[in-house]
Amino acid sequence: MAEYIYVDFDELKTVCVGILKAEKFPEEKAAEIVDVLVEADARNIPSHGIARLERYIKERNAGFIDCFSEPETIFETPISAIVDGKDGPGQCVSKKSMELAIEKASKNMIGLISVRNSNHYGITAYYSEMALKNDMMGIAMTNSYPLVVPTYGKESVLGTNPISIAIPGKIHPFLLDMATSVITRGKLEVYNRLEKEIPDGWAIDEKGKSTESPSHVIKNFNERNFGGILPLGGLGEDFSGHKGFGLSVLVDLLTAGFSLGQFSAETYTTNNAGVCHFFGAIDLKTFGNVEEIKDKVDQIINSIVNSEKADGQEKIYYHGEKEYEARKESLKNGVKILKNTFDKIKKLASDNRITMGQQ
Amino acid sequence: MAEYIYVDFDELKTVCVGILKAEKFPEEKAAEIVDVLVEADARNIPSHGIARLERYIKERNAGFIDCFSEPETIFETPISAIVDGKDGPGQCVSKKSMELAIEKASKNMIGLISVRNSNHYGITAYYSEMALKNDMMGIAMTNSYPLVVPTYGKESVLGTNPISIAIPGKIHPFLLDMATSVITRGKLEVYNRLEKEIPDGWAIDEKGKSTESPSHVIKNFNERNFGGILPLGGLGEDFSGHKGFGLSVLVDLLTAGFSLGQFSAETYTTNNAGVCHFFGAIDLKTFGNVEEIKDKVDQIINSIVNSEKADGQEKIYYHGEKEYEARKESLKNGVKILKNTFDKIKKLASDNRITMGQQ
Repeated sequence: MAEYIYVDFDELKTVCVGILKAEKFPEEKAAEIVDVLVEADARNIPSHGIARLERYIKERNAGFIDCFSEPETIFETPISAIVDGKDGPGQCVSKKSMELAIEKASKNMIGLISVRNSNHYGITAYYSEMALKNDMMGIAMTNSYPLVVPTYGKESVLGTNPISIAIPGKIHPFLLDMATSVITRGKLEVYNRLEKEIPDGWAIDEKGKSTESPSHVIKNFNERNFGGILPLGGLGEDFSGHKGFGLSVLVDLLTAGFSLGQFSAETYTTNNAGVCHFFGAIDLKTFGNVEEIKDKVDQIINSIVNSEKADGQEKIYYHGEKEYEARKESLKNGVKILKNTFDKIKKLASDNRITMGQQ
Repeated sequence: MAEYIYVDFDELKTVCVGILKAEKFPEEKAAEIVDVLVEADARNIPSHGIARLERYIKERNAGFIDCFSEPETIFETPISAIVDGKDGPGQCVSKKSMELAIEKASKNMIGLISVRNSNHYGITAYYSEMALKNDMMGIAMTNSYPLVVPTYGKESVLGTNPISIAIPGKIHPFLLDMATSVITRGKLEVYNRLEKEIPDGWAIDEKGKSTESPSHVIKNFNERNFGGILPLGGLGEDFSGHKGFGLSVLVDLLTAGFSLGQFSAETYTTNNAGVCHFFGAIDLKTFGNVEEIKDKVDQIINSIVNSEKADGQEKIYYHGEKEYEARKESLKNGVKILKNTFDKIKKLASDNRITMGQQ
């Protein structure tokens, strides 16, 4: 059984920032990185949380992440920009790029930013959500390390390539954040640790056949062999796997295609990560009266979540709701962290002579 | 076994336009409607082809479609508009709206149009594709008659709500066109006619349980009982059904939400259809050098389709490829029409005293 520990939200941030600072990350950048990571844990998305801290330090040490560089705008119009991330930390590059999108949208109703030469940026919803407080629709997506196979293929040339869209409402902000694959690598690893079989339609082996063995898929990843995770919709076209495949390609075109960067299969192949992102902000004023639109968003979401439940089900969740609830809980009772993850953080802290509060 | 007949592309259009004219549709509108329908058959998407002609005539007779009205722009900015379709034929309202998006993008790089009070508009890719010839990215989506259930729900409050995105390349235009449900009603009907069971994860019964009986699902639709088609990803969250659900809600928010129109569950409930659409055009110049971007799009798509095939598979298709191939074939050898559909068209033609060439 997995053991958990509850850590105060702010305390957790302070400790993690301290670790990155001790590891020679500049303070401002450390704070930006940690902010995104702790938000993930607070929302119960531990795969994108502080467990990544160690990996980021390793990637900095290996030269993938340049924690001193500043992103550069290399092309610009009043409503758009191409940003070169200069191998900076994904969180820092992305926060600045999304701020630029919002600034452009404040002036000209819309801002669209395509980014190249960045790194892993954490949870996608963090950036799309930034637009909500300005009564803007937010868009964020990223390509990523290749783990996903095309429909009828067996070579993982696509990332899990998540898409997030945020739309403001008065009661219910809509906050979709979805990998375009049927599952993430994190889920595969959970099943592997539990020594559980995975269902048909999640992943394929090196021949392109569906497999029930998560360890087999992970072994193939580690040996850079064929096989991988299936796109949303699963194997072939019977359950519309070609649609997930299409959404994944779309992400690579908007991120790497528009920024002339590296597409998923090309990330982490050279001396940089080369991850590419896409961000957008659209002021709701673009479509008329903001208050009326937000009321309408609430009304549509209300109608959907109040519709008849399947027998045995109690609730239809709107997108973002589970994460908002988890965040509220985390602020009140502490952020739930796997003991295993927490022990690693403690070790990183003690290696760097950082004092932690009593947990 | 289904029998087919091959009809000359232009001849098919002439006959169908003749039928609509004889049924008192204005000639220009008849031509716009038929153009979209015949494109569907030519691309081997018969569910959205001329088989719909009879239904459109019925919907006009029932007062859902007003074939004389003109769409009206009720809100406008340099980069956006809200269009009231005034219950006009979906194809006519949509072509005008997409032209408006393209015109705005020609002047100001981007055009986003949300539309209310329209009707069924045929294949979604028809409109997104219009942007390609201007070196623009095209976006089209529509809500539709409610057939799809939310994750953990059992009431079909969402349409199959398709999304289409077109991105220009030099060799390979990317043309994604996908219902956000795991299947369409058309596929359910095909299985029903063939008396075949449907696989687990396509549809649910009135209790919200997975069902293998297509006739049972269709019966529930006809009796306005609970149950329906599942979102892309299937039942529950194991195969990410909540993602397809989210994409479907997204379509309703951009179409009905932004235009203050009727969302899927509200379409066809009053004295109008009230279908809502969303269209977008973005000039590739927004992101830099158009030729460089198109080359990059080709390069990414090439890398993907040339990646290793699953054992037993010969080809990875990029999105839009199958439809382009079918269209080329149709222009050369005639459009493949189900004999059953063709007989209905012949009857409509003879009822209206229209002469058809020898088939």
